[in-house]
Amino acid sequence: MNTQRKKAEELGNMEYVAENGILHRRAFLSRGLVFAGAAVGGAGVARQVLAAPLADPPWSLVNGDPVPAYQTPSKFASKVVRTLANPDNLPRVSQTRTPHQFMEGTITPNGLHFTIVHAGIPAIDPDLHRFVIHGLVKRPLIFTMEDLVRYPMVSDIAFIECAGNSGPLFSPEPMQADVQALHGTVSCAEWTGVRLSTLLEETGIDPKAKWFIAEGADAPHLDRSVPLAKGLDDALIALYQNGEPLMPGNGFPMRLVVPGYEGNMNVKYLRRIKLVAEPTMSYYESQVYTAPLPNGKAYQFYFINEVKSFITWPSYGFKVRGPGLYEISGLAYSGNGRIRSVKVSADGGKTWGMAALQAPVLKKAFTRFRMPWRWDGRPVILQSRATDELGNQQPTRAEFVAARGQLDSPPAINAFPNHHFNAVVGWAIDSEGGIKNVYT
Amino acid sequence: MNTQRKKAEELGNMEYVAENGILHRRAFLSRGLVFAGAAVGGAGVARQVLAAPLADPPWSLVNGDPVPAYQTPSKFASKVVRTLANPDNLPRVSQTRTPHQFMEGTITPNGLHFTIVHAGIPAIDPDLHRFVIHGLVKRPLIFTMEDLVRYPMVSDIAFIECAGNSGPLFSPEPMQADVQALHGTVSCAEWTGVRLSTLLEETGIDPKAKWFIAEGADAPHLDRSVPLAKGLDDALIALYQNGEPLMPGNGFPMRLVVPGYEGNMNVKYLRRIKLVAEPTMSYYESQVYTAPLPNGKAYQFYFINEVKSFITWPSYGFKVRGPGLYEISGLAYSGNGRIRSVKVSADGGKTWGMAALQAPVLKKAFTRFRMPWRWDGRPVILQSRATDELGNQQPTRAEFVAARGQLDSPPAINAFPNHHFNAVVGWAIDSEGGIKNVYT
Repeated sequence: MNTQRKKAEELGNMEYVAENGILHRRAFLSRGLVFAGAAVGGAGVARQVLAAPLADPPWSLVNGDPVPAYQTPSKFASKVVRTLANPDNLPRVSQTRTPHQFMEGTITPNGLHFTIVHAGIPAIDPDLHRFVIHGLVKRPLIFTMEDLVRYPMVSDIAFIECAGNSGPLFSPEPMQADVQALHGTVSCAEWTGVRLSTLLEETGIDPKAKWFIAEGADAPHLDRSVPLAKGLDDALIALYQNGEPLMPGNGFPMRLVVPGYEGNMNVKYLRRIKLVAEPTMSYYESQVYTAPLPNGKAYQFYFINEVKSFITWPSYGFKVRGPGLYEISGLAYSGNGRIRSVKVSADGGKTWGMAALQAPVLKKAFTRFRMPWRWDGRPVILQSRATDELGNQQPTRAEFVAARGQLDSPPAINAFPNHHFNAVVGWAIDSEGGIKNVYT
Repeated sequence: MNTQRKKAEELGNMEYVAENGILHRRAFLSRGLVFAGAAVGGAGVARQVLAAPLADPPWSLVNGDPVPAYQTPSKFASKVVRTLANPDNLPRVSQTRTPHQFMEGTITPNGLHFTIVHAGIPAIDPDLHRFVIHGLVKRPLIFTMEDLVRYPMVSDIAFIECAGNSGPLFSPEPMQADVQALHGTVSCAEWTGVRLSTLLEETGIDPKAKWFIAEGADAPHLDRSVPLAKGLDDALIALYQNGEPLMPGNGFPMRLVVPGYEGNMNVKYLRRIKLVAEPTMSYYESQVYTAPLPNGKAYQFYFINEVKSFITWPSYGFKVRGPGLYEISGLAYSGNGRIRSVKVSADGGKTWGMAALQAPVLKKAFTRFRMPWRWDGRPVILQSRATDELGNQQPTRAEFVAARGQLDSPPAINAFPNHHFNAVVGWAIDSEGGIKNVYT
């Protein structure tokens, strides 16, 4: 670190806190002085000096396009869309992934929230849709949409993550794919609706009830068992997503949201909640979301998306444009609560600096982390490692594989051979600025 | 209050805190017990008891619709769109308003963020767009999009409100129109980009500079003067709106965001910032956003959207479905910082109860307030009144009109005869549940 420290002094208020150019996050507090070309001897970000007045481009000379009733992205942002795993809409699962590599901030806009459906998107008429609570209750009740909107509402900004997100990282060799392909089945939105506990006050609860089954109105009637304790805690019957009615692919007109629990349990097109004494061993519990372990046992009813982070920029598919100052940016979240800290390494995990966290840091929601970094043009490996408010820290990949196993051969990109991958991941940057997925 | 109090005792944990059915907000803390039919002698929200198993509606029996790359709302939510004031895209102003009466929570989804443009929406190629900072700087610089994304970024959840929002309330008689028509040119999003102060560190600032002019790349080259102090405080060159690139109607590929300042100053399609010693008396400053006062003087450079609130439900266009329990819901915000409190009245402002505020309460952002209310079927007048963290309270309409004046005759719904209306507004509910805009 000695040469690094010396260099830092030459560079004014830049202070290296880890190897290979990781700077103290206070660099962000100085109005970006560190990023100014003058302050770093011309090594700031690229820019041109203004020599002549701006010319008027074509769009400055004509009346523009009409304003639509519902606005959608610019044709120049056509890359910023979800990828389709089942474009012909065959009667099987369809996965669409959020393009985090082209995004910033913490809210996932409704157009880009990931969607997984198992028999297309049902076209539900909300006026005809009915939602039932029955089973071990005192008064089984039917709710219409008109009924539901009369109850007290709450809003939670919460991430939802498919248990299979980052599944390709179970491959024994690192697959070369972008953030969207590797980590695209997690998104974060403001969900507004009625707490399930509010409705259970109205139905009453038989003391024998310990679980509930949630069932969707789509053709597969997707169903999952959820502990009743979660239903009495923060489970939400969500009607709104970022302010507007739910998107068709995200459960319109209503879905269960169980913040921090694997995506599949946030049952969409919700039509039924049945209180029961024991879990039901549904297809998704017994066949899909049971995780075999190296010791011959298996995780079952393993619901929580544990603490996790990944770097969205720089990442596979981009090229770093030569030596200089950059901001490393990424997402962190934990199904157990708030993110306490995220550290970033540029030397494959040997030395670390603490990243800046964008406020407000909310429980069970995306937290954007940012790290100032000066690249000297030599090969580096970038990693992030998050800790949540309970003190849980992301495992290294070696620790994770020892506990959870990995695949014998590389899976197809859309295969989900195993679940709840939350280990540290890394991007290697070569001397040309090219970026690859690596294990360290 | 005596009969009310007595009734409250009969009703268990319901406590009236103001006349005409305004309940203590702690009713929300009891898991909705207050809203349960059993607890209030059958006067809870309407619901049916389940008698037979649910039938399978048509959408439960077929493979559903394909999943699109960019998702848009259900055809059954077709009312939840912006209204178009210039559907033929004539070369004049186009206003589209956010349908707050159909929305909940605090984030405005990108499809529904209000848009005002003065010559259509320019189709800007971000690769060819250039942004210049010049004037009283040490190094006038040109920035490309590729340059800008290298700087440190920040995210602010912030509302933007047209100075003309709620302009119809200047009418001497209350106009009968919905929330969207009256209050639809305010929205709230997570904006991510580079602080202007970061870029000004790179250009340097001539000490003579006290203001800057921001200019757009659309055909009118809309320009406004902004105090440099705001530029060095929280002004943002925003590139992302709720995570994705800005919407075309909201400034793609970049806009100025000056949180809490009137919408027109948040210059879209930003192509130029020029540091100057004095404001420029642009068209919008001298002709439009100068507010004549009853005393013969005028407000000029009156930028801040002061503390404000309105009830989104119940509101004009809906009908209250008979006596019973309801949640009154609305939005509050202040260009001066956080909302401290919102109170709600059901008797035209004589008695008030404190509403529940949805967390997190963020500065210069929408705050959702909610109030439990039991309607007995008699005519009432609902109002909300917000106070911000500086202690500013919304004026009554009488106070506001005394200071700011009103029009002599009713304006057209799209006319903005005056600006920065932030007085208390009200909805009268008649014994049939019909709702009207009233002044009190």
